[in-house]
Parts: sequence; structure tokens; C-alpha cells
Amino acid sequence: MQKILGFAPLDLECYRRTFTHRSSNKVDSDGNPVNYERLEFLGDAMLSAVIAAHLFREVPSGDEGYLTKMRSKIVSREHLNELGRDLNLVRFIESKIAPVHFGENVHGNIFEALVGAIYLDRGYRYCEIFIEKRVIEPYVDIPRLEGKVISYKSLLIEWCQKEKQPFHYDVFEDNGNDGQRMYGVKLSIGNKVVAKARATSKKKAEEKASQRAYFAFQEKINKK
Amino acid sequence: MQKILGFAPLDLECYRRTFTHRSSNKVDSDGNPVNYERLEFLGDAMLSAVIAAHLFREVPSGDEGYLTKMRSKIVSREHLNELGRDLNLVRFIESKIAPVHFGENVHGNIFEALVGAIYLDRGYRYCEIFIEKRVIEPYVDIPRLEGKVISYKSLLIEWCQKEKQPFHYDVFEDNGNDGQRMYGVKLSIGNKVVAKARATSKKKAEEKASQRAYFAFQEKINKK
Repeated sequence: MQKILGFAPLDLECYRRTFTHRSSNKVDSDGNPVNYERLEFLGDAMLSAVIAAHLFREVPSGDEGYLTKMRSKIVSREHLNELGRDLNLVRFIESKIAPVHFGENVHGNIFEALVGAIYLDRGYRYCEIFIEKRVIEPYVDIPRLEGKVISYKSLLIEWCQKEKQPFHYDVFEDNGNDGQRMYGVKLSIGNKVVAKARATSKKKAEEKASQRAYFAFQEKINKK
Repeated sequence: MQKILGFAPLDLECYRRTFTHRSSNKVDSDGNPVNYERLEFLGDAMLSAVIAAHLFREVPSGDEGYLTKMRSKIVSREHLNELGRDLNLVRFIESKIAPVHFGENVHGNIFEALVGAIYLDRGYRYCEIFIEKRVIEPYVDIPRLEGKVISYKSLLIEWCQKEKQPFHYDVFEDNGNDGQRMYGVKLSIGNKVVAKARATSKKKAEEKASQRAYFAFQEKINKK
């Protein structure tokens, strides 16, 4: 858990609640249900605020409509599910039903709940640090969100060809313990693995690995 | 300004921007428009986060749906307009068009922008302090939002009659400098003014004064 958070949790109770599914039917001493659903509400609000502040700072030319649109792309259900799935948060869930029956949105819901727990445990500043590390740094790519970059795979291949660097995508099945078929990919350039990724389709995994490699090489590529 | 904020502003530029209307056509050195519209986006996000955290703490029995509904009542356009109008924020606006042409939503928009400016100037913690003082303390009344209390005026009158206290609503016209017809009211109980309020109708002003008096007397009333 500490590895995922990047800091030491203080109040473990918040995190325990993050991973308590409503099917466990837990209640507190006042009879209120104990599960992660209220934390989702809190985490969603913190996520929206942190992303709003990030976009406000990073895109001084964007007007209100632009900022709103970019934020909704970042905090889209699909994207949050991807974030939660990447961290494989479902493995921590305590529940009376099998993980297969959680549905797709459980990944994003737990991710939001985790942000809510961080707020309760350590306050807004730690939400910022966590979101910076887990959302903004690896995923918030403004040209891509604006639709200016369609495929990182094609950008990367183009670059490798120009540089006469051999490249190879090594794709393999890598199923999660949530029973879903997943694919892993290792991207090598010049015989060195430069990026790894995991996603629900081969294409998505390749794209994600390409994006990671692209960011790692970005300075090099931009110099060309 | 400091009186409204409740603390000393550090970066005056943020607040100057809060009160710059788009009609002033200002631009910064990069050609980006300088007005309060981007700050509205930021302030709205901070307001939502602070109110979410408040409701989360205050209503431990409320589920996700309840919390979402309560928050949207608090941050409704109508309510934000009321908040901005009460502080008479429009008087600070720098613009090339007459205040009468701003439209009704200008009050709420400027209020949101002010919260955004506070975030930029002093960070999340000061947004919390400001929202606590200007939104939560005077206005966030959970029973009322839940629709359990329909009229504070009738609650108050009932109490005065039980207590055999004479009461009097003194209503007068009190137009703002935004050219709108407004009403002021002074509520006296036992020959002492116990609350004042100002609103767009006589009825609203009386209700607001009654609510303020009710909160002031709440302990007394609850003991009965």
C-alpha cells in the first residue's frame, strides 16, 4: 500500500474503508454502512480540484470552456478505470461477492475512493502529491487530450526509422487476478527494453508503452 | 477587500483579475485575455471540493447520492448569485459596459472567481477558511436543504408567541448600486434588533433575517 501511495499512511481506517465493498454489509457503531461509496464522492471532488488547478497553471491560454473540456477528459470514467486497473487496486478489496461480478467501473470507483481516503488521512496537499504522481505525470498529456497526437505508436516508429534504431513490441497475455483478460507489452529499442505496459487489448498496451517511451525520449525527439 | 476576505491578500494581481470583466479587453504580454473567466473555473472546483469535504464530515449517515444532491443545492447558480450579491462584489468590477448589463449571474461568477483568486494567492487552506466563513457558516443549513424546514419565519413567529415576546419586521427599500431593486429588513424581538438582511424581495429578506435570528437563538429554541 505504501508503495502505491508514495508516503506512509497514518490513519489505516480510511484505507481499510477504501477497500470495503458494500456487499460486506459492514456498519459502524451508529448503524451507518461502512464501505467506499462515500469516499468516492470525496475523492472525485479532490481529483477535480487538483486537476483544475493543474490545467489552470499549465495552459494559460485556455479559456473556461477549454479547461472544463480537458478536465472531463482526464477524469472520465474510462480514464479512471484505467488508472485503478493499472494499480490493480481490486486485489485489496474485501467483499462477499467474487471480483468478476464487480463490473468494470469498480477500478475507477476504488481509485476515487483512495483519493478520498488520502484527503481524510493527510489532507489536500497529499492528494496533490498522489495525483501528480499517479495521474498527471504518467497520463496527463495535453497535446494528446487536445487530439493533436493521434497515436504515440506511429510517432515512435517514425522516430525509430529516422534514427535507424531497431524496435520490437513483445506482446504477451498477462491476466489480472480479477479474472479479466489483459495484455502486457515490452517495447525494446536497440535491444533494450525502454517501456512496459499492461492493458485490456494488445493495441492499447502497445499504445501505452509507446507513450511511455515517447515521454522518456521526448527531449531527444523534440531536438530533431 | 481585506474585510471581505478576512485575511490579508498577498498577490494583489489575482484579485485585480477577479474584478476585470471581459469587456475591458485586457490581454497579458503573451496575448492571453485577462479577465475573471478562467478564475471562475478554478474557484468552482475549489468550492465543490471544500463543500464536499464539509458535507462528508457533517453528515456521516448520508450516502453518495445524498451528498451529491446536497452539494448541488449549496453550489447552485441561484445560491452563488445570492452570495455574490450579499457581498456586493459587483461594485469592484472594472468594465467597459454598465453594471446593469452584466446579467444576474455576474454575482455568482465573481464569487467563484474570488474563490479561485484566493486559491492562487494563498492555497487550499485559505479557500477553506473563506468558504467556511462566507458560505458554510451563514448559509449551509442541512435541515433546510433537506426540505425539513420550510420557513424560518414561521418557526420564529411560533417561538415568539410561545415566549410571549413581541416581534416586528421593519422592511424598507434598499437598492444596490447595481441598479437592482432590493429590500432590507430589520427584525426586532422585544424591542431589540436581532437580525438584519437584504434580498431581492420583501419575502426573501424577511426569511433571511428570520433564519439568522433563528441560528442566533437556536440553542434557546432547541431547549424548549
